[in-house]
Amino acid sequence: MQILNDTDGMALALEWAAKGMFITTPNPRIGCVIVRDGVVIGAGHTQPAGQAHAEIQALRDAAARGNDVRGATAYVTLEPCSHHGRTPPCSGALVQAGLGRVVAAMVDPNPLVAGRGLEQLKAAGIAVESGVLAEQAYELNIGFFTRMRHGRPWVRLKTAASLDGATALASGESQWITGPEARADGHAWRARACAILTGIGTVKADDPQLTVRGIDTPRQPRRVIVDSKLEIALDARILQGEPCWIVAAQPNGDKEAALRAAGHDVVNLPNASGKVDLPALMLELGRREINELHVEAGAKLNASLVRVGCVDELLVYLAPSLIGPGQPMFALPPLARLADKRALRFHELKQVGADVRILARTIKPEE
Amino acid sequence: MQILNDTDGMALALEWAAKGMFITTPNPRIGCVIVRDGVVIGAGHTQPAGQAHAEIQALRDAAARGNDVRGATAYVTLEPCSHHGRTPPCSGALVQAGLGRVVAAMVDPNPLVAGRGLEQLKAAGIAVESGVLAEQAYELNIGFFTRMRHGRPWVRLKTAASLDGATALASGESQWITGPEARADGHAWRARACAILTGIGTVKADDPQLTVRGIDTPRQPRRVIVDSKLEIALDARILQGEPCWIVAAQPNGDKEAALRAAGHDVVNLPNASGKVDLPALMLELGRREINELHVEAGAKLNASLVRVGCVDELLVYLAPSLIGPGQPMFALPPLARLADKRALRFHELKQVGADVRILARTIKPEE
Repeated sequence: MQILNDTDGMALALEWAAKGMFITTPNPRIGCVIVRDGVVIGAGHTQPAGQAHAEIQALRDAAARGNDVRGATAYVTLEPCSHHGRTPPCSGALVQAGLGRVVAAMVDPNPLVAGRGLEQLKAAGIAVESGVLAEQAYELNIGFFTRMRHGRPWVRLKTAASLDGATALASGESQWITGPEARADGHAWRARACAILTGIGTVKADDPQLTVRGIDTPRQPRRVIVDSKLEIALDARILQGEPCWIVAAQPNGDKEAALRAAGHDVVNLPNASGKVDLPALMLELGRREINELHVEAGAKLNASLVRVGCVDELLVYLAPSLIGPGQPMFALPPLARLADKRALRFHELKQVGADVRILARTIKPEE
Repeated sequence: MQILNDTDGMALALEWAAKGMFITTPNPRIGCVIVRDGVVIGAGHTQPAGQAHAEIQALRDAAARGNDVRGATAYVTLEPCSHHGRTPPCSGALVQAGLGRVVAAMVDPNPLVAGRGLEQLKAAGIAVESGVLAEQAYELNIGFFTRMRHGRPWVRLKTAASLDGATALASGESQWITGPEARADGHAWRARACAILTGIGTVKADDPQLTVRGIDTPRQPRRVIVDSKLEIALDARILQGEPCWIVAAQPNGDKEAALRAAGHDVVNLPNASGKVDLPALMLELGRREINELHVEAGAKLNASLVRVGCVDELLVYLAPSLIGPGQPMFALPPLARLADKRALRFHELKQVGADVRILARTIKPEE
C-alpha cells in the first residue's frame, strides 16, 4: 500500500486504531503507522492498559522488520503522550528513535498531555503537524474524550422498535422486533463500551445477561444495574458470571451484604427523592474510568436518563414493521407545547440487514 | 454529452422522462432520446394527455435541429405504443422515420400494447432490445403500472413523526414536527400524485387545503375526502378552489346536493358496516385513471387503509426529536402476538434537511 499524502497515512493509522476497539479501555484506541517514501515501514495500535501504546508498537514493528525509522514520518491518531502514566511517555520514544516528522490527528484533551507531547517533539527538532482526520479520530474515542473533558462517560442509549415506535407489545413480548443482523450489530456496540447499564425493571421483566455474544472480544463490559431499592434477585442471570456494579438509593444492609458476598459491588447514590442520582452516577462511572456507557433499559429508565440530560446519543434500530400500541422507547410525560419537544440531531443513518440503524445525538447547549 | 453505451442512453432517456413528472397524468412519464454515433440528435418526453408522446417529441426535436434520424438508435423508457389511443401509435412513427434500432427500458404492461409495439418494430426490420434500466423505469411510473396490472392506484401514505413515533401532541398540535426541507419534499410527493386522499377527521381537526404549494407544477392533484356520513362543512378550506371527490357511505341527500351544486362529486361506496368500502374506492380511483394516490390522513384512516391492505408504500419523515405520548401514526388495535406484526420492507432511506425520510413498502403475498 502506497501512502501518497497525510490523509492516506492517517486513514491507515485509523484502521490500525480500530484494531484496538475492544481491548484498550480505559485507554483510548490509538493507531500509529510509520512511513518512509510512501511505504509503511511499521505499524501498531494500543495494547491493553499497562502495555505498549501505539507508537511503541509501531517502532517495535519497524525494528522487528529491520526497518530504519530515522527521518521517517509517524502518523498517530492522537498526540503522543508526554507523561509517565502506566507506561513511559511515547514522545520520548519517538525522539529517541530519530523520527523526522510526526503527524497527529488531534491534540490530546487529557490535561496531563494537552499539547505538551507535540511541544516536546518540536523541541527535539521533529516537524509536527496536527488536525488530519481529526473528526474520525475524535469519534473513535468519543467516550475517552468525554471523560477527559467532563469527568463522565459518553452515554449511548440503545433501543429497538417497529417503524411506528413500539419496543414491545403491552405484554412485554419483544423477541424479536429487529432481525439477526441488527441484533449482532447491537452486540458490537455493547462490546466497544466499557460498561452496560440497565435498570431493575428490565432485570425483572426480561432477566437478561447483558453480555457480549457472537463478537470476538477478550473482555466483557462491566454490567451496571440501577436498582434503587436493591430489589434484584440473587439468582438473576445478570449476577452470574463476572461481577456487577449495583447502584442503589435506599439502604438494604442484608441484600447489600449478600451481593457483596457474591462478588458484586454496591454503590449508594440517593437523590433527594430516594431514587438513584443519575448525574452523580455518571460522575462516579467517570471516576471508575468508564469511557463509553451503553444503556439497554426499559422506557422508564430511558426517560429518566433523557430527562436529567444524561444521554449523549441514541442508537435506534427501526424494524420494517408496524406494531400499533405497545411499549414506547421513552416513558416521557406529555408535553404541553410542541415547542418543548426534546431536540436531537441525526448523526448517522444506515441499513443493517432488513432494519434501519439511526444514531441521533442530544443537543446540549452547555457543552 | 457522449452516449457510450445503452445504459448511458437509457439513463439520459430517464432524465427526460422525469421532466414530465407533473404533467403527463394519466399517461406515464416517458422519455426518449435519439442517438447517432454517440451523439444525441433528438430528445423529448411525454406531453399532457392527448398531446405528443415522448417518441414523437424526440423525432420532432431531431427534425427541428435538422438531424437525420435514419439508422439512428432511439432509447425509450417504455415500449413504444402500438395502438391508437388519444394519439396515433408511436411504433408506426418510429418505423416511418427509419430508425435503425430501438432500445426500450421495459415492455408496456398495458394489455393494449404488451409487446406488440416492439413486435411491430421488429417486423419492420428495426433491431429492438428491452430491459435496460428497467427497475428505474418501473419506479418512475409505479402508479401507472399498478393501475394497468391491478386496476387501482399505487397508494403512498405520508406521515411525519418524532423519532419516538408521535405525529402530534394529544391536543392535536403538530406544526411543526419536521423541518422546512422535509415539508417542501412532502409537497413534491403531493405534486407527482394524481390525487391526494384524506379523511373527514383531518378535515375537521386541521382544515387543510391539501394543495401543492412551493412546487412549479401546472396541475393540482385531485383531492379526495373519505367522509362516511358527509359531515364535511361547506366552508371547509379543502372545498374551496378546484373540485373535490367526496366519498360517502350513508345517504345524505341535502348535503350531497349542496356539494354537487358547489361543483364537487360525491361517490357513495358503503361497505356492510356503513363505512366507506376502501378497497372498492381504490378500484373506483383506478377507473378514474388515478395512478399514484398520496394519502395524508390521521391515525384512524391510516390504520383502516393498512388493515384492509390498501397501502403500498409508507413515506415517513422522522424528525430528530422526542415527544413522548402523543398521536400515533396508525391507530391499530393491539396485537396478541409479536408474530402478527405487519411486515414492511425498507425501500429507501435519506436525510432531508435535519429529518430522515424513509420509504417502506408493504409486503403483499398475493401480488
